[in-house]
Amino acid sequence: MRQFAKPAPARNGYQIIMADFTQEEIDAVYRVMTARRDMRHFLSDPLDNALVGRLLAAAHLAPSVGLMQPWRFIRVCDRALRASIHALVEAERLETARALGERDDEFMRLKVEGILECGELLVAALAPGRERHVFGRRTMPDMDLASVACAIQNLWLAARAEGIGMGWVSLFDPERLRLLLRMPPGSRPVAVLCLGHVREFYPRPMLEMAQWAHGAELETLVHQDYWQD
Amino acid sequence: MRQFAKPAPARNGYQIIMADFTQEEIDAVYRVMTARRDMRHFLSDPLDNALVGRLLAAAHLAPSVGLMQPWRFIRVCDRALRASIHALVEAERLETARALGERDDEFMRLKVEGILECGELLVAALAPGRERHVFGRRTMPDMDLASVACAIQNLWLAARAEGIGMGWVSLFDPERLRLLLRMPPGSRPVAVLCLGHVREFYPRPMLEMAQWAHGAELETLVHQDYWQD
Repeated sequence: MRQFAKPAPARNGYQIIMADFTQEEIDAVYRVMTARRDMRHFLSDPLDNALVGRLLAAAHLAPSVGLMQPWRFIRVCDRALRASIHALVEAERLETARALGERDDEFMRLKVEGILECGELLVAALAPGRERHVFGRRTMPDMDLASVACAIQNLWLAARAEGIGMGWVSLFDPERLRLLLRMPPGSRPVAVLCLGHVREFYPRPMLEMAQWAHGAELETLVHQDYWQD
Repeated sequence: MRQFAKPAPARNGYQIIMADFTQEEIDAVYRVMTARRDMRHFLSDPLDNALVGRLLAAAHLAPSVGLMQPWRFIRVCDRALRASIHALVEAERLETARALGERDDEFMRLKVEGILECGELLVAALAPGRERHVFGRRTMPDMDLASVACAIQNLWLAARAEGIGMGWVSLFDPERLRLLLRMPPGSRPVAVLCLGHVREFYPRPMLEMAQWAHGAELETLVHQDYWQD
């Protein structure tokens, strides 16, 4: 793929990058985490190519187990391919509704993806050949997925800072998507990422607004020394 | 656990949180991603309790599949328990060296954790009962791990902004660690997180500085429409 711009701070050199963060900068980091949303509603305007490059560069700054950098990204530019991905997701949406049983109607009323209307569609994937990487994965081979998730979270936060919405769609059969994208054996798509301009960001998580689920209080999720229930 | 402070921006209310980001704030977000390191060298000074609360609150702002928030955190305060966790990690370090074959000596010279010296030790885990959550997980149940990884990445970035180092250790047998921490069946520890003040942050990833591994160029990891090799 074409050359991507380096993230913005690189222009200032190493000393600026490693300098202490001011209170305003610290606040910006917390704020972007607070304002980030899993978006399903997008405007269709395309994203600037340099912006997409910055977001991918942010993803590539993520940590990875043993520095294996297992992530790969596919930019979906072809409209027919995008429609095929949408069809795969729609098929899984119906299967999920069936599996949900009594909440199936409620689920079917949710908007769960914005694949056809978003300005930019990416697929994030695990590379093949990961079995060579043993460091940090002997007992927990799925740390490679954890690394890709960190990359996606970086991308998500960078997008939000730049005023761009993103939604992570995991409603698909990974093997069918792998074949559709002509990905090699041993690779695996893990996320369909809808990116785009938005009219507004949801004030709260959309699944809370739709009364599908409610977040827990942090205090209930933290233990000291030993698990207590 | 005790009440944690909300993240800093909350004091300014909703409109401030959702306001556009200035160029300086956008730069701060990219810079914290660029300056973040997987740390293994720590000073032993303890972390301020309110700071730990802010970091956990940052983790809890992460996205999660179907809003299931599968993460749990254990703060390890007991020194004897910390020593037991260290022993588990040391045992896996030796097993990993054995599994690495010809790179075993090289691996044994790496510093792979700072469990005994870091100021604060956390264990991040997957909660039990996750099989109830079908949305986004019917074909890919390990999206719960991806959600915990996003939470850890939030925590990592918040720590770096606050000048605190973090290292993610995945060298352990998860079942042995689960039993040590008296975690219920169906739960699973996924990360031992060393947090603490540091003398300095590594200028480059430590595994690159130690010639263990080298990062790839982003351009080689991005495809258009279909996978090309």
